[in-house]
Amino acid sequence: MGEVASQRVVTCHSLSNASGNSQAISIVLLGAGKVATHLAPALVQAGYNLRQVWSRTEGSARMLAEPLGISYTDDLTAVTDDADVYIVCVTDGALPEVAQEIVAHVQRSPHAPLFLHTAGSVPMDVWREAGANCYGILYPLQTFSKERVVAMREVSLFVEASDEASLTAVEALAHGLSDKVYWADSRRRSLLHVAAVFACNFTNAMYDAAHRLLASDDIPFDVLLPLIDETAAKVHALTPREAQTGPAVRGDEAVMQSHIQRLSDMPDLQVLYAQISKMIMNEKLIIKN
Amino acid sequence: MGEVASQRVVTCHSLSNASGNSQAISIVLLGAGKVATHLAPALVQAGYNLRQVWSRTEGSARMLAEPLGISYTDDLTAVTDDADVYIVCVTDGALPEVAQEIVAHVQRSPHAPLFLHTAGSVPMDVWREAGANCYGILYPLQTFSKERVVAMREVSLFVEASDEASLTAVEALAHGLSDKVYWADSRRRSLLHVAAVFACNFTNAMYDAAHRLLASDDIPFDVLLPLIDETAAKVHALTPREAQTGPAVRGDEAVMQSHIQRLSDMPDLQVLYAQISKMIMNEKLIIKN
Repeated sequence: MGEVASQRVVTCHSLSNASGNSQAISIVLLGAGKVATHLAPALVQAGYNLRQVWSRTEGSARMLAEPLGISYTDDLTAVTDDADVYIVCVTDGALPEVAQEIVAHVQRSPHAPLFLHTAGSVPMDVWREAGANCYGILYPLQTFSKERVVAMREVSLFVEASDEASLTAVEALAHGLSDKVYWADSRRRSLLHVAAVFACNFTNAMYDAAHRLLASDDIPFDVLLPLIDETAAKVHALTPREAQTGPAVRGDEAVMQSHIQRLSDMPDLQVLYAQISKMIMNEKLIIKN
Repeated sequence: MGEVASQRVVTCHSLSNASGNSQAISIVLLGAGKVATHLAPALVQAGYNLRQVWSRTEGSARMLAEPLGISYTDDLTAVTDDADVYIVCVTDGALPEVAQEIVAHVQRSPHAPLFLHTAGSVPMDVWREAGANCYGILYPLQTFSKERVVAMREVSLFVEASDEASLTAVEALAHGLSDKVYWADSRRRSLLHVAAVFACNFTNAMYDAAHRLLASDDIPFDVLLPLIDETAAKVHALTPREAQTGPAVRGDEAVMQSHIQRLSDMPDLQVLYAQISKMIMNEKLIIKN
């Protein structure tokens, strides 16, 4: 009996074929952090039946679920066990445990739900190790702050799945949310995550360095916004190498030295200035050779 | 006689008052690099009488001047000596010499022209040292690539001048070009320049790092563009500290370690990853304490 039952469970569903429309697909969201905060309204707006939000912290679950008119819980054993899809958006560190718990709680049911997580650097194997049969990834390559509304249709979503039917299901779900859906295995996804750290988190750290510098002389950060916007806009049309400007790519040692002296009060920025300038100069050599 | 003449020369003009309209103000542009390439059409479009372009390289002068129907020369002694304004846009290293030469060539005339340069890190004193009487700065805080058209009205322009009449003149000129005109002395301007290196040149270096990473696995850079745009858009509404996301600000050591291992083939990016992450973590501590 065990064998037969488990055989039945591993028949994964390509939900889009089964139902034909997004309304029929029921989803439970686990987590109430930055990603969940942006994913929940996007799912509702796309017409999915978002049935429940779970978070370890009841207040967070309520804050996210209540405005959307969705039920919520902080008790994992109270999570509805007959949804079609469970999307886990928790921190990378919490993910293995939450995966284990939700699979153990839900997979008793015979309908083979689809388990997804949204993390950049956690391999899909976390689901196999948790005992899931049908699973995959829905990784949004975006920076989410709770204070900001993000147009999800513009967000690059990377998908991966345990099997063909699950891939069809997660692809349909992704297309329901965004116009930019790509496939990436766990190795490529983690590379995308590192690249995103540079393109977003470290870029923002450069903005923060500029902010600190201007604040030291009471200059409002706003004066840099046209420059920041143009810097981002340029790489839509040019490669970053082509778009590079400034003293380092010009090899202007005198300006670089004067800037490094200027940064003597901020030794962390001083070290960074020398190091990134060196990288830009090396990159230029690579172009020339 | 010498005394009287020099007395007459140092009466600087607030050109806007004298002429009442931009058409009457004649300008010579010295330089044909990135800044000049963007400034020349903006001056023409704003209705100024751009009379001549000089560049050490005749081909560069022609390439810039010809499409605008403006005369050009590579001979500094052939530069028209009765213009109202001379704007020097050459590299920081070439600036002292070009300043000296143009002042010596032009200032014989009794009409006290206004000498301006556009560099971020060259003090206004370069003009005094060159023997100019009426001078100032028109510093555009923007990244200029020849391949890109920049909306000059959106560019932050920083002005400074030797005297009140010259300041009035350079302010009027700046307002003719942009809606964002600010005053900054040479010390503040050089701070703005360092901040701009972080906000623009180093930000672009982060894009380039991401580009290298993705290229190593044939992933098109385009997938990062929505993320890059949102990262820039966020700091219009939040401070960079508030906008910071990613493993470093979360203190997620496991993800950071896995990323640093992932970068073992690119030691320059590996060092940078550790260093910028440390800066982000330190900044976070500053907020908390």
